[in-house]
Amino acid sequence: MKTLKVIKIGGNIIDDDVALNKFIMDFATISNPKILIHGGGKLATKLAQQMNVDVKITNGRRITDGDTLDIITMVYAGKINKNIIAKLQANQCNSFGISGADGNTIVSVKRPVSDIDYGLVGDIIKVNTSTVNILLDNNVTPVFCAITHDENGQLLNTNADTIASELAIAFADKFKTELYYCFEKNGVLSNVNDDNSVIENIDTKTYKNLLDDGVIADGMLPKLNNCFKAIAQNVYKVCVGKPEMLFNSNLKHTTIQK
Amino acid sequence: MKTLKVIKIGGNIIDDDVALNKFIMDFATISNPKILIHGGGKLATKLAQQMNVDVKITNGRRITDGDTLDIITMVYAGKINKNIIAKLQANQCNSFGISGADGNTIVSVKRPVSDIDYGLVGDIIKVNTSTVNILLDNNVTPVFCAITHDENGQLLNTNADTIASELAIAFADKFKTELYYCFEKNGVLSNVNDDNSVIENIDTKTYKNLLDDGVIADGMLPKLNNCFKAIAQNVYKVCVGKPEMLFNSNLKHTTIQK
Repeated sequence: MKTLKVIKIGGNIIDDDVALNKFIMDFATISNPKILIHGGGKLATKLAQQMNVDVKITNGRRITDGDTLDIITMVYAGKINKNIIAKLQANQCNSFGISGADGNTIVSVKRPVSDIDYGLVGDIIKVNTSTVNILLDNNVTPVFCAITHDENGQLLNTNADTIASELAIAFADKFKTELYYCFEKNGVLSNVNDDNSVIENIDTKTYKNLLDDGVIADGMLPKLNNCFKAIAQNVYKVCVGKPEMLFNSNLKHTTIQK
Repeated sequence: MKTLKVIKIGGNIIDDDVALNKFIMDFATISNPKILIHGGGKLATKLAQQMNVDVKITNGRRITDGDTLDIITMVYAGKINKNIIAKLQANQCNSFGISGADGNTIVSVKRPVSDIDYGLVGDIIKVNTSTVNILLDNNVTPVFCAITHDENGQLLNTNADTIASELAIAFADKFKTELYYCFEKNGVLSNVNDDNSVIENIDTKTYKNLLDDGVIADGMLPKLNNCFKAIAQNVYKVCVGKPEMLFNSNLKHTTIQK
């Protein structure tokens, strides 16, 4: 079975031109097949302010009305995605920008309203791998932005971490799939203020202990839930850390285990 | 040889939700293979105004500085392209949004500065059909926005009419290619104020006469130049008119001939 690397980069890389250019140069050297998923960073919030659209964030999640969805679609699928593609091409990495609507790749449903109405936010219900498989088979690297659709003409804002884990799971029957969450820290930290306090291995049991002890901070919870969902569904390897973990095997990071 | 329809829609359809929805429903019924190219309409100008970015248009062409390119990339590749894809999927037309950077499909060079510096505007130098061919072979409809790249990491604003003709030409060795320019008029008019004055056939000789007589208005010139370039380079059929010409063979329109 071939190895497929599914790599998610967060806002800290997107927001920093130098970091993004360096990452793209390094990413381009990774042998195929590989998939990139990118978040949106602060650009969407900046554009919303320029357009006088209110930014509403609850529990770390963006409340997405129609204007906000337009902004997200413009920034994620337009500006960020196409600039990443142009830069990858300049680094001889043939790539293709994708939203969940393209090729009907990722289908979601609008999140049901409970205590909070998140608006036009999608929860993934299906990943269709066929068109992406064709790209991978032809040595083309798919680059996903964090937008999906409902098959009824509605685009939906969707968490990039979740897109990454769902893609890794969907390809786990065809590839030995490795999922990498790249962000600004060296991994899951036992002390959030000490970047050297990396917990190098977390399995289901130690995860429960960490939760009980309150070690896992709010922002890490959904990311780790995505990690454990992936590792439970036959993703071969799941890692969390700085992007350099992809290229420097000595760099400490967190590996998730069953 | 299979027939490939290459269809360009202009701003008048993009700017009108009802017209766009109707077009998409009709377009989805066209049997494959087919390619759609869309312009940008007034949305980019509207966004520029909201963001306080100056809009500079000279000879009908947008002067494209860095801020303007960002706006165009957001509107064309983001908002317009992804909403068209979502709507096509809702009409059971499996489709894929593409800029010239995706799959390294359309390579251009920054237009040299002569009397006017158009800024980040691209003149097409190469069309790579391989990735698009793969999509077509797999029954997926490519939908192009009017953005290309220079292979060195720079996106470039590129005329949608030209993208359409260059795509039609590039595929003319594999398909019996038909190129359709859809806009708000019934075709090339002998009297610009009379939509019934359609000139149904124009060949190279009558085109020269029309130019000499000043019948061809400024805006039609680049469009017709693209038409004649395509027909000269083995595109099988080139038509100009309302989108309904695609579905109603009785509707008058202009056909370009060698």
